[in-house]
Amino acid sequence: MSNQIKVGIVGYGNLGRGVLEGIKKCPDMELVSIFTRRSPEGIAVNDKNVKVLHISEAENYKDQIDVMILCGGSATDLPEQGPQFAKMFNTVDSYDTHAKIPDYFAAVDQAAKESGKTSIISVGWDPGLFSINRLMAEAILPAGENYTFWGKGVSQGHSDAVRRVEGVKGAVQYTVPIDEAVEKVRSGVNPTLSTAEKHLRVCYVVAEEGYDQAKIEETIKTMPNYFADYITEVHFVSEEELQVNHSKLPHGGFVIRGGQTGENNKQIIEFSLTLDSNPEFTSSVLVAYARAAYRLNKEGQAGAKSVFEVAPVYLSPKSPEELRRDLL
Amino acid sequence: MSNQIKVGIVGYGNLGRGVLEGIKKCPDMELVSIFTRRSPEGIAVNDKNVKVLHISEAENYKDQIDVMILCGGSATDLPEQGPQFAKMFNTVDSYDTHAKIPDYFAAVDQAAKESGKTSIISVGWDPGLFSINRLMAEAILPAGENYTFWGKGVSQGHSDAVRRVEGVKGAVQYTVPIDEAVEKVRSGVNPTLSTAEKHLRVCYVVAEEGYDQAKIEETIKTMPNYFADYITEVHFVSEEELQVNHSKLPHGGFVIRGGQTGENNKQIIEFSLTLDSNPEFTSSVLVAYARAAYRLNKEGQAGAKSVFEVAPVYLSPKSPEELRRDLL
Repeated sequence: MSNQIKVGIVGYGNLGRGVLEGIKKCPDMELVSIFTRRSPEGIAVNDKNVKVLHISEAENYKDQIDVMILCGGSATDLPEQGPQFAKMFNTVDSYDTHAKIPDYFAAVDQAAKESGKTSIISVGWDPGLFSINRLMAEAILPAGENYTFWGKGVSQGHSDAVRRVEGVKGAVQYTVPIDEAVEKVRSGVNPTLSTAEKHLRVCYVVAEEGYDQAKIEETIKTMPNYFADYITEVHFVSEEELQVNHSKLPHGGFVIRGGQTGENNKQIIEFSLTLDSNPEFTSSVLVAYARAAYRLNKEGQAGAKSVFEVAPVYLSPKSPEELRRDLL
Repeated sequence: MSNQIKVGIVGYGNLGRGVLEGIKKCPDMELVSIFTRRSPEGIAVNDKNVKVLHISEAENYKDQIDVMILCGGSATDLPEQGPQFAKMFNTVDSYDTHAKIPDYFAAVDQAAKESGKTSIISVGWDPGLFSINRLMAEAILPAGENYTFWGKGVSQGHSDAVRRVEGVKGAVQYTVPIDEAVEKVRSGVNPTLSTAEKHLRVCYVVAEEGYDQAKIEETIKTMPNYFADYITEVHFVSEEELQVNHSKLPHGGFVIRGGQTGENNKQIIEFSLTLDSNPEFTSSVLVAYARAAYRLNKEGQAGAKSVFEVAPVYLSPKSPEELRRDLL
């Protein structure tokens, strides 16, 4: 029997595909199966050796899977699947509805404690790596201020909002950090900045024929919640241009803390990500935390955890001795 | 009895002073005493309420101190004090002789396990926060390369080397990351770079009267190990200028990982520090990990740990619930 960690994937969208790629880069892991709510025959996977099963079969794999990576969305999939799978498997997920995290944590925690499994929730970069950096920077520099900038990157929610405007055939919205705001924060002056003062919204829009572009632009720029409070740019492009230049899903951002120590010495901690593919990066974080969930469970640490409760050592395939020697 | 964590400081140099300042910013902590090898009367502390005792009295405080922050140096102080204090107290230290970390860990681990105490070693920013970022970035992006840049900052060892040159009255050496190298790494091309290709060495030197500056410059630039392999700049300045412009101890640096996911999507993770005061920042990290040592010990986790074995949650004075709600 192999010593590899046996992994299952629930859901095969952008995130599930990224997890499949991520596992291939980890010699200590082995994919057992993808589970889908769709018809398994309809799922096209590049690799013929990958098994695809209907999600209803997952319970038959309780003894053959060490950790299940839940790749569903936060709106409807995870609130149901998180607690359900925690009753049977160690799990990791990328639940990211910030306001509902405490409730979600409680539901998963109860299920995982009953089954004796370990579930790490809200894994990814925000929530996830950015959260860890906010926590650590604040703990190390109690006198100071945290700033989070997102972008440059595609916001799916804002892109969808633009696509719903009458006369819009296609659209992509980039969230872009405002350079002056970033530089001000990096200088350590700890300015007061709203989200709108930190970010620009840049839209690339394909208009339907016969619609007034000026009117579309006005509708976008005045849309409440999404754009009205922001500096928004609207650029009209052809369908081909949208396809060629704006079909990737880059993202990233910064967490910066400006703090003071002693007699007003400025200390700046910054963590940043520049990502060609947002879903592939999030998937890579999920895969590393899947390793952690499996190991924590082996140590008897059942229940729900967030990334805050996971020590770095659990993420690496290397031994603590190796890590201390080579990376400390 | 107060609920505060009761802290002791061993050694009162730059680091000890920084720890004293750091504790003042933590309402959940209380300083019991500074312990020194010097004559306690000779130690000038700004705050009259701070107790200063001879180090030989520390053992009488076993029941009154929750965690001892060891502020001695790695060359001679810590190899002795680390294991010695771990026999009596929970400890944190900033041991930074990379090559000897495994031996030091073993010695402290044995002492701490015998006493049932918890000791976190090699705490600070490198080793410390930089190490955590190297580990996590590598675990998340297994296909990729780590780069560490130091500076712009004062290197104490290199400054001392310049001061030993005949005819040098005073000197400060800055290690400066080379911009082109940083930008290359940030672009994700993963270049091969030696330490010398990543860093410039800039020296500010006060010459004694009657010495040939050209000769001093030549001696510095050709000094083996320290400067010969580097691009080195030597600037002669007056004693006043050295005092006014170069008496602070700024430092910082970057840990950058360039990784690839899927079909060659570039993913860049960067962690950086820009510090007005290197010792005060290191001290702030020590204080946060002192909180962790105390809590880990309360949970029965005795023995030596590195920062790799400490989950972020232990560093913050906030509860896990608060952290999940506000920072996740």
